[in-house]
Amino acid sequence: MSKILSNIKHLIFLFSFSAFSQGDSIVLNEIYKTSLTDGKAYEWLDFLSNQIGGRLSGSLNAERAVNWAESELIKLGLDEVRLQPVMVPKWVRGNPEFAYVETKPGKTLNMNVCALGGSVSTPPAGIKAKVVEVSSFDQLEALGRDKVEGKIVFYNRAMDKSIIDTFKSYVGCVDQRYDGAFHAAKFGAVAIIVRSMTLAIDDLPHTGSMSYGNLSVQQRIPAAAISTKDADLLSSMLKMDNSIKFFLKQNCKQLDDVLSYNVIGEIKGSEFPDEYILVGGHLDSWDLGDGSHDDGAGCVQSMEVLRLFKVLEIKPKRTLRVVLFMNEENGLRGAKKYASESRKNKENHIFALESDAGAFTPRGFYFEADPKNFNQILSWKDLFEPYLIHFFELGGSGSDVGPLKNSVNVLAGLKPDSQRYFDHHHSSNDIFSTINKRELEIGAATMASLIYLFDKYGLVKVTKQ
Amino acid sequence: MSKILSNIKHLIFLFSFSAFSQGDSIVLNEIYKTSLTDGKAYEWLDFLSNQIGGRLSGSLNAERAVNWAESELIKLGLDEVRLQPVMVPKWVRGNPEFAYVETKPGKTLNMNVCALGGSVSTPPAGIKAKVVEVSSFDQLEALGRDKVEGKIVFYNRAMDKSIIDTFKSYVGCVDQRYDGAFHAAKFGAVAIIVRSMTLAIDDLPHTGSMSYGNLSVQQRIPAAAISTKDADLLSSMLKMDNSIKFFLKQNCKQLDDVLSYNVIGEIKGSEFPDEYILVGGHLDSWDLGDGSHDDGAGCVQSMEVLRLFKVLEIKPKRTLRVVLFMNEENGLRGAKKYASESRKNKENHIFALESDAGAFTPRGFYFEADPKNFNQILSWKDLFEPYLIHFFELGGSGSDVGPLKNSVNVLAGLKPDSQRYFDHHHSSNDIFSTINKRELEIGAATMASLIYLFDKYGLVKVTKQ
Repeated sequence: MSKILSNIKHLIFLFSFSAFSQGDSIVLNEIYKTSLTDGKAYEWLDFLSNQIGGRLSGSLNAERAVNWAESELIKLGLDEVRLQPVMVPKWVRGNPEFAYVETKPGKTLNMNVCALGGSVSTPPAGIKAKVVEVSSFDQLEALGRDKVEGKIVFYNRAMDKSIIDTFKSYVGCVDQRYDGAFHAAKFGAVAIIVRSMTLAIDDLPHTGSMSYGNLSVQQRIPAAAISTKDADLLSSMLKMDNSIKFFLKQNCKQLDDVLSYNVIGEIKGSEFPDEYILVGGHLDSWDLGDGSHDDGAGCVQSMEVLRLFKVLEIKPKRTLRVVLFMNEENGLRGAKKYASESRKNKENHIFALESDAGAFTPRGFYFEADPKNFNQILSWKDLFEPYLIHFFELGGSGSDVGPLKNSVNVLAGLKPDSQRYFDHHHSSNDIFSTINKRELEIGAATMASLIYLFDKYGLVKVTKQ
Repeated sequence: MSKILSNIKHLIFLFSFSAFSQGDSIVLNEIYKTSLTDGKAYEWLDFLSNQIGGRLSGSLNAERAVNWAESELIKLGLDEVRLQPVMVPKWVRGNPEFAYVETKPGKTLNMNVCALGGSVSTPPAGIKAKVVEVSSFDQLEALGRDKVEGKIVFYNRAMDKSIIDTFKSYVGCVDQRYDGAFHAAKFGAVAIIVRSMTLAIDDLPHTGSMSYGNLSVQQRIPAAAISTKDADLLSSMLKMDNSIKFFLKQNCKQLDDVLSYNVIGEIKGSEFPDEYILVGGHLDSWDLGDGSHDDGAGCVQSMEVLRLFKVLEIKPKRTLRVVLFMNEENGLRGAKKYASESRKNKENHIFALESDAGAFTPRGFYFEADPKNFNQILSWKDLFEPYLIHFFELGGSGSDVGPLKNSVNVLAGLKPDSQRYFDHHHSSNDIFSTINKRELEIGAATMASLIYLFDKYGLVKVTKQ
């Protein structure tokens, strides 16, 4: 390795007077090559997914993941590795959910459902009620208390198949999951079921976070996701006979908050140690799968970024920090804690990059940046062309880095190919066997390359916050 | 649909004096939307893969696929559907292969192998011999007859993991599979085994075509692929003890050529019926999987291109032809037949597009084109940006359309994301469950869009051949 490096350094020296980007392209080439031939992301994810598994905030697995990540970062020989305490919600699913449609007494058909994260349980004997299908809150409102009271509200607006970026389809639907119980409870519904947030037509229910808003504990109603196949079936059955009943039993519970941690590792900057560059993902996941895509991948890719700097002996000018956030899925407590501590300590985060959109082939990045900084970023675009990274757009970053935004810094989110993502997201199909090693590794290399460029060139006209 | 269309036509009319591309972008939007919300490619592929299955040239399944494709094209209401007869080789695998390593008499370890397509069988009792591992023909030559005679040559040069485009890694390795037996036989080897052409480290052997060159029937030796995991294992074992023996038994056979068909459908051009635009894939596949990626996907995408023209009521100015070629995998007889017939009939193919690189998210196209035509193509690039199609490069097309190249026309190949392709290619893992519906559909829409633009604008300075 050191021989390669000295060759690179020699070449960088040769070119540094004529064209910076020639040196940069050599470094990027080395980053991609090392990630693809000698990477550690896949092996790490194998352990995190298969030896630890799903890591819901507050669970024993989440604790094990924290300890494992800390020990792996220590092995990298970083300048500092630490745990940042944060209190997190602890919601447990309990025994698996059970649901069926009853067309007449004794005639039932089982349905694939799962409780939404944060939902209350049903009474121990379950809930059986008629169903009213809606596709929007407006439609619910138009029906009014008369048609809703005592019933189960079934939100069945499907994700829009015609949109290329599946995250945009998701955003156009997820209000049903997040706010559905809140709205339905106001009209006297006894429970809600919501069509799973996926473009696949299959048997898997997809969980995810929800909120009861300002509803009192007494007003809260159980909320479950139903598979898309069963949503279609239920909808057809309702068209034939709207007096059929739906039975739902779930056994979830919200316990007291518990102590958990963000895991933080860093390489001190050699020239501007007070300028921080952050790369991260979230260590918690939902409980149905093993959280390989959401967001084990983002965690091991972020760890890999720092590992690549170490093995390639690239000494950052600025302080490089990996943060594995806790509790992105149902509270964002880790991100909020990290941002507030960082404000308190007046840490100047010039750039923060998150990977939380799956382990698929990276297409580029979304950015939150002012025009000058975005122009600098666009000037790097050609460097990524050999790796088929073309997508550099304004328009977002990630949930965990979001709270770090200020008027001068830049945030970004890795943008992998999105077509398969919601086939896995929050379901029992988010598992390691669906990860492609190379796609994961190209993602890590793409992140490391952008971080390398940000470290080298810094912010344009960076001013103190 | 017709209402949408009249709206589109109205808009096209409005914009046609100011900016052509505005009208084009509306048509492309309609093509993508229809493919994603009302496409037929996935349903077709489900049938071809799951109801018919692997379709090796000359097999009963290949015949069933021909009949099925013809009947589906007829249902589309094309102007003409026909079968083009072609004699194809018929190679059969026979009973599954069996192989093991023997470390000492009675101590054996089974190995995952499969015969290469076109290989001769072993004698009925199999072959058992010492193994000599090489990574190139040069190395084989350096060893010479002394070290090779009576042994099994084991070609173990791995695909290069550092190359982003996995097809380039494949091209850098496939000589071992294609010519390996030819070279080894010259030095008296009794058989060859070749490391499977995949970047995955797993238990699946990958078959594929091979040639004995000018070797007489008596000189031909059996050739098999071994899984990458077993290749690594065998290589380690040989390092410890190069006297271990390898046993191989395979039961394949080359039968007489049989009659098969290319399946052809067309929509007559309204203005220039003598200018042909071809879109196609190959209907045959290897026998281990169901050929979903290679090349069921390309077939159904090509059929979908014509279907989209029909349902969107886009009347092509030029004659649009879908060709499902027979025998790409082990002979290219269908492509050669089609090209020679087309030359005989003086058919002017101005453009031919092939899809034969898997059903993954399309990234763009490779082209064979002169600079003027390539510039015209590049002028369309922005139209594809909303669909995240960025890759427009010179450098190839496809095996089946290749024979149609002349000095004035343009050929192209769809370029899907390549990271996962060789995890499936020619193995029992090339199956329908690994197909993502949306990725397949976006591929079909991308092909239809390019065909639409070629039909509308034609070749730059088209001259008679």
